[in-house]
Amino acid sequence: MHTAEVLASRLGLDIAVAELERLFSQPGADPPDYGLDGGHRRPIRVAYQGVRGSYCHEAATTSFPSAAAVEAFPSGFWMEDAFSTLESGSADRAIIPAENSLDGPIDRNLDLLLRHPAVRITGELVVPVNHCLLAAPGVEISDLRRIVSHPQALGHCERRLQSLDLEVEEVDDAAEAARAVAEDRIRDTAVIGSRIAAKEFGLRIMEQSIHDEGGNYNRFLQLGVGDGPLYCGENRKTTVAFSLEKGVSGLFRALWVFESRGIRVTKVDHRPNRANPVRLVNRAGGVELAQMDYVFVVDVEGSELDPRVAAAVAGLGEFSGFVRVLGSYACTCGA
Amino acid sequence: MHTAEVLASRLGLDIAVAELERLFSQPGADPPDYGLDGGHRRPIRVAYQGVRGSYCHEAATTSFPSAAAVEAFPSGFWMEDAFSTLESGSADRAIIPAENSLDGPIDRNLDLLLRHPAVRITGELVVPVNHCLLAAPGVEISDLRRIVSHPQALGHCERRLQSLDLEVEEVDDAAEAARAVAEDRIRDTAVIGSRIAAKEFGLRIMEQSIHDEGGNYNRFLQLGVGDGPLYCGENRKTTVAFSLEKGVSGLFRALWVFESRGIRVTKVDHRPNRANPVRLVNRAGGVELAQMDYVFVVDVEGSELDPRVAAAVAGLGEFSGFVRVLGSYACTCGA
Repeated sequence: MHTAEVLASRLGLDIAVAELERLFSQPGADPPDYGLDGGHRRPIRVAYQGVRGSYCHEAATTSFPSAAAVEAFPSGFWMEDAFSTLESGSADRAIIPAENSLDGPIDRNLDLLLRHPAVRITGELVVPVNHCLLAAPGVEISDLRRIVSHPQALGHCERRLQSLDLEVEEVDDAAEAARAVAEDRIRDTAVIGSRIAAKEFGLRIMEQSIHDEGGNYNRFLQLGVGDGPLYCGENRKTTVAFSLEKGVSGLFRALWVFESRGIRVTKVDHRPNRANPVRLVNRAGGVELAQMDYVFVVDVEGSELDPRVAAAVAGLGEFSGFVRVLGSYACTCGA
Repeated sequence: MHTAEVLASRLGLDIAVAELERLFSQPGADPPDYGLDGGHRRPIRVAYQGVRGSYCHEAATTSFPSAAAVEAFPSGFWMEDAFSTLESGSADRAIIPAENSLDGPIDRNLDLLLRHPAVRITGELVVPVNHCLLAAPGVEISDLRRIVSHPQALGHCERRLQSLDLEVEEVDDAAEAARAVAEDRIRDTAVIGSRIAAKEFGLRIMEQSIHDEGGNYNRFLQLGVGDGPLYCGENRKTTVAFSLEKGVSGLFRALWVFESRGIRVTKVDHRPNRANPVRLVNRAGGVELAQMDYVFVVDVEGSELDPRVAAAVAGLGEFSGFVRVLGSYACTCGA
């Protein structure tokens, strides 16, 4: 390709990615008609963690209502795969699951973000979980002997499972189970899985939203390599990781750096500081205590481009071992 | 038993438990000679999570150097078992693993502490991990074909494993594998496990401390039912759980309640608030955002009996959905 073509292609991609950012911050808005003028623009390649038919696949699709300009593909079973897919340039964005409102966060994401400095959080999506009872076409409830799913999904649907009173079996991957039920035309087994699994594998949705009462939401992160486009708009968050030179007792001072500038801290996480996992602390009486040392990861309200956020991050550097912005992004609530 | 006997027995136990608290706060101190005067005193029953030969078993033993007054027994594979053993009165104390300095915390503990209000943290023990290479008696390195252990332990010993260049196999429970190697006299397999596994099953410690460089420590919690004896001595911590009426944006205010009284906050954790897992927040532009809601769990320096800590906990109640002290305890560093 000539340089001009490379530039044009790059520009096209930038526009497309910028549009994707806009979509993430405006759920439900229709994406524009991209067209493929002269072949310079290509679809945005979005890798999702897991396999076809997973909730993460569904989230990738939910985020981009029109698939015209988006090419979504699975990056593999391991969370690491999403990161390496991005780093190798095989995807423009990756979607990974980050948290379930009932079961808690997937801390491994933070470790991976710390280990892959080129990868940044470019968006956050919070969507209600819709656990569906999936079976092969023509199968009725009375045909069923067994219900299979991931232990977490089974845990979310305890009441419906009790009322069905069928054999229950745990599997590592509900989407894989759904595929097997479809391909092998298994008629005595239903799977608790996503709507998109039904669509992908040609299964019948027997029931929707079969989870127990209570707010069951999944949170997903959108990741990208490089800075990407940044906005100062509404519903922006910035995630900042840092270590503390004097250890955990400096945590409040670190939070004060944000709050004193009117920037709300909405979450404080900590992960092992593998560079310095333990600190020996001398206490009164000559006792030496081993204290775990951490990398703290905080979510604050506001964009990285907000001068107050930028000043806070700079201020944090004055007493931190290291400071890194893991991303500055829009928070979106999907339907 | 007559009432007087019950009381005497109860008193004896209280003294014993108080002594146990003292031991936890003074590592290395020899336990007193309890004696069994008239059968009124019985050993302190300490349940440890997991099986015989586990690191948790070792921690229970490390905490109580003389086993004379302590009866340690495994509570079972599941973390829940330690809690139910305490609640049923079958144990006076339970020891559970809480964190590894390289791999991070076991968040499930916090969920269980929130779900079992009668159970409180009564001590904390931080000990260096000593991964040993264990084999059947008479076995030499040259006899080995395979090394097995828990994935976490294997991950800690990568360099030694690389230099040994043997087949590596993951198992769910290293202590169980050690028992199997001993009982079945398997000669081609070594296990990475604890010193106590060698002692319990009659295995040979081929090498000690085979983990990679870096601070590898385990943190264990000691649990008990009821208030137990409380001290105001050195190295005290208090763990407080609370929810926030106005959601995550009130987190800093909650921390300020402690710090403004000179009480250092050294850790902030959050777990799903299962009573209210998601909060819908209206933002400018009419966008409704789903925000995860949490129970926050903070560690602060100082005893619950410190009037400043007590005042802070009371102050927290003014804007919290609920506040509960999960424990006030000594932090100990084992050898």
